[in-house]
Amino acid sequence: MYRTHNNGQLRAAHINKEVTLAGWVQKIRNKGFMVWVDLRDRYGITQLIFDEERTSKEVIEKATKLGREFVIQVKGTVIERESKNANMPTGDVEILVSELTILNQSETPPFTIEDDTDGGEDLRMKYRYLDIRRKPVRDNLIFRSKVAMAVRNYLSKEGFIEVETPYLIKSTPEGARDFVVPSRMNEGQFYALPQSPQTFKQLLMVGGMDKYFQIVKCFRDEDLRADRQPEFTQIDCEMAFVEQEDILNAFEGLTKHLLKEINGVEISEFPRMTYDEAMEKYGNDKPDIRFGMEFCPLTTEGGVVGTFEPKGFPVFDNAELVVAINVEGCAEYTRKQIDALVDWVKRPQIGATGLIWVKYNADGTLKSSIDKFFGEEILKQWAEKCNSKPGDLMLIMAGQKNKTQTQLSALRMYLAEQLGLRKSNEFAPLWVVDFPLLEWDEETNRYHAMHHPFTSPKPGQLELLDTNPGEVKANAYDLVLNGNEIGGGSIRIHDKKTQALMFDYLGFTPEEAKAQFGFLMDAFQYGAPPHGGIAFGLDRLVAILGGQETIRDFIAFPKNNSGRDVMIDAPAPIDHKQLDELHLNVVIKS
Amino acid sequence: MYRTHNNGQLRAAHINKEVTLAGWVQKIRNKGFMVWVDLRDRYGITQLIFDEERTSKEVIEKATKLGREFVIQVKGTVIERESKNANMPTGDVEILVSELTILNQSETPPFTIEDDTDGGEDLRMKYRYLDIRRKPVRDNLIFRSKVAMAVRNYLSKEGFIEVETPYLIKSTPEGARDFVVPSRMNEGQFYALPQSPQTFKQLLMVGGMDKYFQIVKCFRDEDLRADRQPEFTQIDCEMAFVEQEDILNAFEGLTKHLLKEINGVEISEFPRMTYDEAMEKYGNDKPDIRFGMEFCPLTTEGGVVGTFEPKGFPVFDNAELVVAINVEGCAEYTRKQIDALVDWVKRPQIGATGLIWVKYNADGTLKSSIDKFFGEEILKQWAEKCNSKPGDLMLIMAGQKNKTQTQLSALRMYLAEQLGLRKSNEFAPLWVVDFPLLEWDEETNRYHAMHHPFTSPKPGQLELLDTNPGEVKANAYDLVLNGNEIGGGSIRIHDKKTQALMFDYLGFTPEEAKAQFGFLMDAFQYGAPPHGGIAFGLDRLVAILGGQETIRDFIAFPKNNSGRDVMIDAPAPIDHKQLDELHLNVVIKS
Repeated sequence: MYRTHNNGQLRAAHINKEVTLAGWVQKIRNKGFMVWVDLRDRYGITQLIFDEERTSKEVIEKATKLGREFVIQVKGTVIERESKNANMPTGDVEILVSELTILNQSETPPFTIEDDTDGGEDLRMKYRYLDIRRKPVRDNLIFRSKVAMAVRNYLSKEGFIEVETPYLIKSTPEGARDFVVPSRMNEGQFYALPQSPQTFKQLLMVGGMDKYFQIVKCFRDEDLRADRQPEFTQIDCEMAFVEQEDILNAFEGLTKHLLKEINGVEISEFPRMTYDEAMEKYGNDKPDIRFGMEFCPLTTEGGVVGTFEPKGFPVFDNAELVVAINVEGCAEYTRKQIDALVDWVKRPQIGATGLIWVKYNADGTLKSSIDKFFGEEILKQWAEKCNSKPGDLMLIMAGQKNKTQTQLSALRMYLAEQLGLRKSNEFAPLWVVDFPLLEWDEETNRYHAMHHPFTSPKPGQLELLDTNPGEVKANAYDLVLNGNEIGGGSIRIHDKKTQALMFDYLGFTPEEAKAQFGFLMDAFQYGAPPHGGIAFGLDRLVAILGGQETIRDFIAFPKNNSGRDVMIDAPAPIDHKQLDELHLNVVIKS
Repeated sequence: MYRTHNNGQLRAAHINKEVTLAGWVQKIRNKGFMVWVDLRDRYGITQLIFDEERTSKEVIEKATKLGREFVIQVKGTVIERESKNANMPTGDVEILVSELTILNQSETPPFTIEDDTDGGEDLRMKYRYLDIRRKPVRDNLIFRSKVAMAVRNYLSKEGFIEVETPYLIKSTPEGARDFVVPSRMNEGQFYALPQSPQTFKQLLMVGGMDKYFQIVKCFRDEDLRADRQPEFTQIDCEMAFVEQEDILNAFEGLTKHLLKEINGVEISEFPRMTYDEAMEKYGNDKPDIRFGMEFCPLTTEGGVVGTFEPKGFPVFDNAELVVAINVEGCAEYTRKQIDALVDWVKRPQIGATGLIWVKYNADGTLKSSIDKFFGEEILKQWAEKCNSKPGDLMLIMAGQKNKTQTQLSALRMYLAEQLGLRKSNEFAPLWVVDFPLLEWDEETNRYHAMHHPFTSPKPGQLELLDTNPGEVKANAYDLVLNGNEIGGGSIRIHDKKTQALMFDYLGFTPEEAKAQFGFLMDAFQYGAPPHGGIAFGLDRLVAILGGQETIRDFIAFPKNNSGRDVMIDAPAPIDHKQLDELHLNVVIKS
């Protein structure tokens, strides 16, 4: 036993008790006749005191030689502090040390182990084991573990069974790129790491497991964008004998439970919105509805609101969509502020050609960047349409529908961030439903499954596949929280014929379909029940519940944007012997 | 909503209720005027009844066309059964069906979906999704999930934090062979899948996480022996500021909790045995102590018990060890039975040259296979030494110490199995402690770490490394249950100097040590606390708690002995495009 108590435990009630503590030296203050040491562990900080009058000379001497991050063990008596610290749970007491053992020394760490450290991201990642000693990082990992336990307990109570599905599976070209694992025992053959346990969970439904979940690592060999990881964790779920409504209710239940249990927030019912509605109102299939700023379309069938014929303003005349957002209380934005917004939307990441503004001044007058084309009378009609009030600023974009929606959505989110409307302690979940079954892929010049090839179309819509594929809606849904997709799923196809039709439509030859998903098609012959499911991104979910948006902060040992673990320096070359055993040659092109 | 109740739910109290059920057709009995269908789901079986008088003609007709494993939905009324079935929870009632919907048809399954199926192992694995519909398989998976939840809840309550460590790590040549994952973004470089999160959990201790656990998949590319899987699940644990005693107590607590929670068995305290003692008493470092049959050495310093000089029996005279077991009540074994035992130990898997028997007959006389060399007086002394009573059979082996111990241990286990002494509902855990630090490897002709290179030697024994390395004992322990190692761990080295010494001793050059474990050596510079841990094999633990020994039965989608998943047919060749992206060529030798 290295300790009788931890460093977050001692209170006034323990005064006069003999204790043994162990931990890291956080801080040393040496006043010559007195030395204070802050001793730290996972549970907190306890102040140690060594003083000339009450501590042996030898122990004091040892204490003065301690350095930051030394690991020590002390024995001593809990005494009352002279100057109490109300900000520390242990702030009423300190330990008068009688014995001091140095368990391990420490070099000076490469950055300070403080809540606000002087270490940059790269340095902290290289020495992640020191970064984890910092309270914010440690708290995030503990928070993650708490969320995962809450998920497991809730789902278990609801009758879900956690089943482990295999990690060494089979590569399929559909979807993102697989990580593969060469097989030594099967020459020239490879396993793949799962992008998700999708087919296995469907097979578990065929197998009658009824309600399945798993918190499971998944893998995607993608070019990494910011805050994407090659390995990530999913809360993967599937239910049999369900319709969409059953799934939404079950996982609305889970999400409510988490918000209550973890964040103390009660939400009665989650709003539902169709994909089309989300795109129209927010230009985004994962809208942040913590704040308004809804899209206000200025185009009607007859043309732009308030006009009945082209006004000679080409930006509008040629636009498929003219759409505004109303930014409350921002009519007084300066020229410079507005120019900054214009510049922001023109950046290549957004790619807009311009931004039109209309100020509804406090005195009731209206002023716009297109006064030349549209008189105050028309501007007023726009303001009315958009519920704009004196003091507000309207921002307008125009152009091709999809692009304009995406660009204005980005601006809406940017403004909300700037204006402090995205409050991390506010939670606004919603379901987005009725997603399109297919989406057009410019690169391959054909339709792809928007969700995955196992998603079922809405009843009666299968017939549209040939005539109007982009219009076919799916039994697919996303759970959105604060502008992030935290979960997504669908009701699956469960009959062999429809599944074959889908594979065919997605460009699989019957042979390819058989080679890759033959086992699923086989399974569908033997009484597959109706089923559906959902998967949550645990990394993202935890970050949002934790009031943050960077998933890397909630992963113990994350990889950088090149997929490297800079701490252990992986990936790395392997032995020739290993390659030989795997029947592989590395081909370096240079 | 496909159903109002599941098929395990309805009782007499539900009589007259209108219900909707869904599930699989287990069985159909058609008496012409009446049709009964057993409807099955995860929760149980409910009997449906269709009869001429009360069911519409159309519905009856549909019912007669149902086949086994069809997926159906029925509406109807709960009625009292005429002949109740006390063996079924739902046996008091049946459903008088008014509506029948076929949700999916089924081909005749390749084997019967019954507790005792007619399907062989291979067929069941190919159609594992149908195998899982069978109650024993389904129950095993549910049992596994229950055990895992009990582990998580117990450890969480004890302050352990579940931290996810990465799956894409770095290959190290020490230990078993790694599975590797080629990196597309880092030409010619590879990740490795973890054989265990060993170094990461140690880094979490350096990082101050204090108490860590994780239920985690691990991977080993070994030639598969029976009942080994290339991917397996570990309950991985680590604690800081602990001595061996703290770890033993903590995980004795976990194991007691599981035995109580899962099996309803209370065990007060686990016996502890040193490795040396286990080898002497049972010839085995994971002894099954549910039954006696302890080893009884017949060699003393002066020679074989009862003799003071060589007796001209070369088997004994040249033996390093002569050792017996006493098999209670088997003195009446026939010549044929004993010959079978002799044959059994002579099989190449055991490799013994022979087996000596001594019958202690019920009438008090003694008879042996070596009467020529040893008179009854000497046999009597052996019997006394081994607590053999009239009616017992002593079996004796002799030869080189290690080999003889291993062979007699195998015989002991075989006999216990034959005699029904290994009762699956009896649980006898014990700790085996003080393992050797090193073990001799014949192949490489040098010592290897018995546990792994991070295991700390017992205090003061490091000095023996140079003079008597085989004698150095480690702070290493195994938890043994019913003759299986279910967990093993050690107190780790936590200072850089000792770790460097160990790497050196194990044949790593400083450069190799740095390349492979540099991050750990670095970490040890910055205040590593004393720490240690343990890992349990979840697959094995679950099987044993479930009263079985085949881990495959507790894995949803296991691989066969060639590491293949015969259901999805993996591993499999991959596209040339994929290989190109990974900078790899497959080299097929033929």
